[in-house]
Amino acid sequence: MSSIKKIDGAVCAAKGFYADGVSAGLKPNGAKDVAFIYSDTLCEVSAIFTTNKMSAAPIAHARKISQSNFVLINSKNANAMTGKEGVEDIHDILNTLTHKHPTLTNPLMSSTGVIGVRLPKEKIIEAALNFELTCKDAKAASEAIMTTDKFSKSIAYELTCKDGNSFKIGAIAKGAGMINPAMATMLCFITTDAKISKEEMQTILEHVNHKTFNAASVDGDTSTNDTVFILANGQSNCVDLELFEQGLEAIMEFLAKEMVRDGEGATKLVTYEISGAKDDKEAEIVAKSLSNSLLVKTALYGEDPNWGRIAASIGASGVACKESTLSISYDDVKLYEKGVNLFDDTVELAASKVMQQESFSIYCDLGIGKGKFRAYGCDLGYDYVKINADYRT
Amino acid sequence: MSSIKKIDGAVCAAKGFYADGVSAGLKPNGAKDVAFIYSDTLCEVSAIFTTNKMSAAPIAHARKISQSNFVLINSKNANAMTGKEGVEDIHDILNTLTHKHPTLTNPLMSSTGVIGVRLPKEKIIEAALNFELTCKDAKAASEAIMTTDKFSKSIAYELTCKDGNSFKIGAIAKGAGMINPAMATMLCFITTDAKISKEEMQTILEHVNHKTFNAASVDGDTSTNDTVFILANGQSNCVDLELFEQGLEAIMEFLAKEMVRDGEGATKLVTYEISGAKDDKEAEIVAKSLSNSLLVKTALYGEDPNWGRIAASIGASGVACKESTLSISYDDVKLYEKGVNLFDDTVELAASKVMQQESFSIYCDLGIGKGKFRAYGCDLGYDYVKINADYRT
Repeated sequence: MSSIKKIDGAVCAAKGFYADGVSAGLKPNGAKDVAFIYSDTLCEVSAIFTTNKMSAAPIAHARKISQSNFVLINSKNANAMTGKEGVEDIHDILNTLTHKHPTLTNPLMSSTGVIGVRLPKEKIIEAALNFELTCKDAKAASEAIMTTDKFSKSIAYELTCKDGNSFKIGAIAKGAGMINPAMATMLCFITTDAKISKEEMQTILEHVNHKTFNAASVDGDTSTNDTVFILANGQSNCVDLELFEQGLEAIMEFLAKEMVRDGEGATKLVTYEISGAKDDKEAEIVAKSLSNSLLVKTALYGEDPNWGRIAASIGASGVACKESTLSISYDDVKLYEKGVNLFDDTVELAASKVMQQESFSIYCDLGIGKGKFRAYGCDLGYDYVKINADYRT
Repeated sequence: MSSIKKIDGAVCAAKGFYADGVSAGLKPNGAKDVAFIYSDTLCEVSAIFTTNKMSAAPIAHARKISQSNFVLINSKNANAMTGKEGVEDIHDILNTLTHKHPTLTNPLMSSTGVIGVRLPKEKIIEAALNFELTCKDAKAASEAIMTTDKFSKSIAYELTCKDGNSFKIGAIAKGAGMINPAMATMLCFITTDAKISKEEMQTILEHVNHKTFNAASVDGDTSTNDTVFILANGQSNCVDLELFEQGLEAIMEFLAKEMVRDGEGATKLVTYEISGAKDDKEAEIVAKSLSNSLLVKTALYGEDPNWGRIAASIGASGVACKESTLSISYDDVKLYEKGVNLFDDTVELAASKVMQQESFSIYCDLGIGKGKFRAYGCDLGYDYVKINADYRT
């Protein structure tokens, strides 16, 4: 019997992986702002990058790398819209580091923060030259990559194959706001000692990403820097691909929900369970229309069971749908069923109670076909405006 | 020489048109909530309806009508998601009215307000039976159709042809919030005494609508009830199609801007002038991505010249673009030009000053091709959340 078990250690859980986070003085209050992840043997690297056409310098640099054993990460500055100089800054920083630590092979860099400002290269180099590559402080690394995050995000699993051999997968991530169906301003670093090829890993990553990070939305914008990296060093000498996918999905689903729960100004995590669409693609369109609708999000914040906005958003999404086949429930409270409005004082009270929870589901059955999709969204309150009205200062 | 002159009278400016607004007790405070527009001769009717698949009962009813001389309008209740009964309610109301006023021919109805609740039929009938069809109070009508609008919206023009003959076009409209590129929760009623065929009028209406109402955005949602009607009774016995289009564009552009300016919680009207896109369609995609981006809208509210969010939003829109050819200005202040970041303290101060105005333009030249589009948007502040968090109560 194979098994899956939650463990501590995050990106340092798998054999041969090390990490730390330090302060380079990029954040004003001396908080950690630069981190590394290191493997003592070379890793296969799979990655998913932002779909934003203005992708940042670190992404242009990372696209060319398929094997590596080191990732340098900084917060507070995205190194985006910085032209050729932005890429040269990365080379300068990483060359200096490799000069000090000759074991580094094809080091990667990843950045998040303000767009359009050159990296404070000297500060980053000074901090990075002091890295202890034998350090295993995944918590410090997870804190260093935070921007508007209210809490750090990490997780790890040990996966035991039928034959008794086991491998580990661990991750840290950042993201709060700008998390959109197209995977925005989020960074996720996954390490594993599974023995898996880059190609197998890439296929599984893309498949799982579609159901997890790409199903999570805070505000519908996409960023210049979004990245998911998996580094696999093979040190466990084993893998079970089905189990690997199961473990990766558990990790990425957990982190996707954590990002939505930490959405800028969010007070609720809402799961949109869409069924009965013409096909899965149309179900996805509906799920993301709902999770991105400002009118739906403000109604969630107000705990107002205004199912009319749900119906209007479905209608606005352009998919095949009609009044007479549509059904809407909030958890187990039915509000509208196949064209019949069930809303009365009793239903309103019950639906309001559902909405007072920190987390609940909205079920929409379009009654047209067999398409389904699940998406994660949050509400939008005053704090979203406060956080974003003057982000740079 | 033809000429165009602003005049008073709104929907009652053109010959043979009458209007009024009264209270039927739908709004709690005794405010006006039911209106009519009447022509003493039969009109050609052109219309544009919402693209929302859950379009409301009055739209299902109106789609079948090509000539009419009467529109009944109510606020506070959208008569949407009300099934067959919603359409039957319209027939009941209009049949009762026609019985009292036999001159009414194919009367239309138009509604706006909460979704999913049956019309308070008796209240509407009682109020409508007291209509004075000879009344010319366009102001009362424009007030009766308001929902979350902070001010009523109306305008009229007299257009004089080269041969000295003249015709008039006037309008009232409602809309504040939910005004989206796809024309959401807005109603607009236009009357004219121009002698124009339904077909000519429909073509011009669709053309002008694309550049005006469809270029206006408050929050990216579309509603179940959006409608633009033009009623033309031909009583001026003249028209000049070019002049008609010019007048209609002046009217619809004015009303589109008024709706954005009145956007729920909006404090600024921002015009996005996109040029240099691959084609006009891509310029339109960019303009609407910017005007709908929450991160851009909150930065506008905070008067934060964060041009990086503009660049990221353009990149996220999926159109052909690149860093090295992009230029961004706020009014005449250049922030980023063909890959060169011009942002320094002086530019920041100048850009902040531009943003403190009630109305300004953001210019984005993609430097790729000749496509261009102009869109209208607003900022998003605390009041948007306040107004929408608990709309029904």
